[in-house]
Amino acid sequence: MTAVRRFTLAIHGGAGTVARAALSGADAHGYRAGLGAALRAGHRVLAGGGCALDAVTEAVVALEDDPHFNAGLGAVLTEEGRVEMDAAIMDGRDRRAGAVACVSGPRNPILAARTVMERSPHVLLAGEGAERFLRAEGVAFAPATYFLTQRRIEALDRELRRRDSGKPDRRSDADRHGTVGAVACDAAGHLAAATSTGGLTGKQPGRIGDTPVFGAGTWADDATCAVSATGHGESFMRWVVAHEIAGRLRHRGECVEVAATAVVSALAENDGAGGVIAVDAAGHFALPFNSEGMYRGVIEPDGVPRVAIHDEPLT
Amino acid sequence: MTAVRRFTLAIHGGAGTVARAALSGADAHGYRAGLGAALRAGHRVLAGGGCALDAVTEAVVALEDDPHFNAGLGAVLTEEGRVEMDAAIMDGRDRRAGAVACVSGPRNPILAARTVMERSPHVLLAGEGAERFLRAEGVAFAPATYFLTQRRIEALDRELRRRDSGKPDRRSDADRHGTVGAVACDAAGHLAAATSTGGLTGKQPGRIGDTPVFGAGTWADDATCAVSATGHGESFMRWVVAHEIAGRLRHRGECVEVAATAVVSALAENDGAGGVIAVDAAGHFALPFNSEGMYRGVIEPDGVPRVAIHDEPLT
Repeated sequence: MTAVRRFTLAIHGGAGTVARAALSGADAHGYRAGLGAALRAGHRVLAGGGCALDAVTEAVVALEDDPHFNAGLGAVLTEEGRVEMDAAIMDGRDRRAGAVACVSGPRNPILAARTVMERSPHVLLAGEGAERFLRAEGVAFAPATYFLTQRRIEALDRELRRRDSGKPDRRSDADRHGTVGAVACDAAGHLAAATSTGGLTGKQPGRIGDTPVFGAGTWADDATCAVSATGHGESFMRWVVAHEIAGRLRHRGECVEVAATAVVSALAENDGAGGVIAVDAAGHFALPFNSEGMYRGVIEPDGVPRVAIHDEPLT
Repeated sequence: MTAVRRFTLAIHGGAGTVARAALSGADAHGYRAGLGAALRAGHRVLAGGGCALDAVTEAVVALEDDPHFNAGLGAVLTEEGRVEMDAAIMDGRDRRAGAVACVSGPRNPILAARTVMERSPHVLLAGEGAERFLRAEGVAFAPATYFLTQRRIEALDRELRRRDSGKPDRRSDADRHGTVGAVACDAAGHLAAATSTGGLTGKQPGRIGDTPVFGAGTWADDATCAVSATGHGESFMRWVVAHEIAGRLRHRGECVEVAATAVVSALAENDGAGGVIAVDAAGHFALPFNSEGMYRGVIEPDGVPRVAIHDEPLT
């Protein structure tokens, strides 16, 4: 009998949490249930000997399909009232990578990103050109109405009325920083990362954030770590957050917890509200954030999902 | 009398050089003249006490306006026969950054990127959403015919006929890896970087390469260095080339020449044909490439442009 090798899956549902005081018990239950379901979906892959790449794909599909989170079903709307979604996936074995930006049709943008990685010579495809490629590859599309959820229509309405009134932008993190992501270390010690988002409520069409930018919002390299970020995308791009964490492992020999915590702390001083999930090839993980909360969770071989929303420990 | 402080401007016109044996004397003269004019345009700014950001802007505008180079006038065509250009600019003083991707109208994409940096809250805008923003901001657009140069039409025609014939892709670097870029250290020790490209001849619409991805094709941070890359964009994105060079300065204490040369050498083993130009805050520069050549040049306070195409020294 051989010992079960350690594997780890960590996920986030965005640093855009509802403030602790404003989060009802029923809502908290909904978020926790969504995180738990995504962790179990990824666990099934890893416990069956599957690879990290498949595990992060399954976990992110589950989060995209849950309307609590700003990705896939539940994505926020642009100022023109439609979704424009970004997603990225990266395989730590060989740094293969694929991403989509500003796509409106794919039901699961993370599957679109994976199709770019596996079936195109490119790393990043955007807009209509991306959509044509994805349709030709047989990626599943959903009708526009699928993405128009009541909650996101109301959030856009509030934001457009605020702009008309000239009042300052006092949106909470919950209205601004939604993203979902997953990182995994499989039993063979391989890493993968996946991130998916609808972006910012009322955003300008064509805006691309950190999610589909490898090194900023998404990163995986077996030699260092896998990272998925959530937060103020523009700052995360200017600080190349995920690759900076990996660089501290490679060049300074730091562990993933020290590196991720240091980079996220420094971001707080640079208009970089948010957080990251990170895992290394030994299965060690870190989930630091500098915002009020970050929907997050971890699952290991015992199969028990552990999740948290604000600064409480994982349970 | 005070000593003139050192300043440095380095530029590239792409690693997609014409093979030495195939480059006529007249063509070589044209490339060298274009590089020289761009160096002098940037030198005027720096010699007048201007900042690195303005110097790289002026140098890249000059390269965009020269049809020898694959950016602005002279940009290559997508498989649909139109230009889709990417450009990025970054200010090392505060890491402010702006980029455009997949834009068709702006006469000088680098001015479009600078407008995103200075007049939007975003870092990267793509496609029609970007074009609407740029028109509203008064950025100069050119008609589609401005960009349809005979040379690029013929290159696309050759590539589309090759695809129809099913022959393997044996395009030279010159048909594939065109980009222009500039990095500068001004007399105050501030850095900036700018990169602009038409991408790949016959590319899929919506493809975004390394140019507008901060950390991959473009980077500037006074604390380390400014970098502009040219080459196989997908590899440069997966190796986060520019930020990796900066990381080696920050974390390992390497000088810019050692770091840039090491990263470009490693790229050669990872399908990463191309090169970079890099400068640090003391004005030290490096121009390594792993391809047959890289159109490149440097100018310092003496105002004498020094340029090279293949592996000959700068003259």
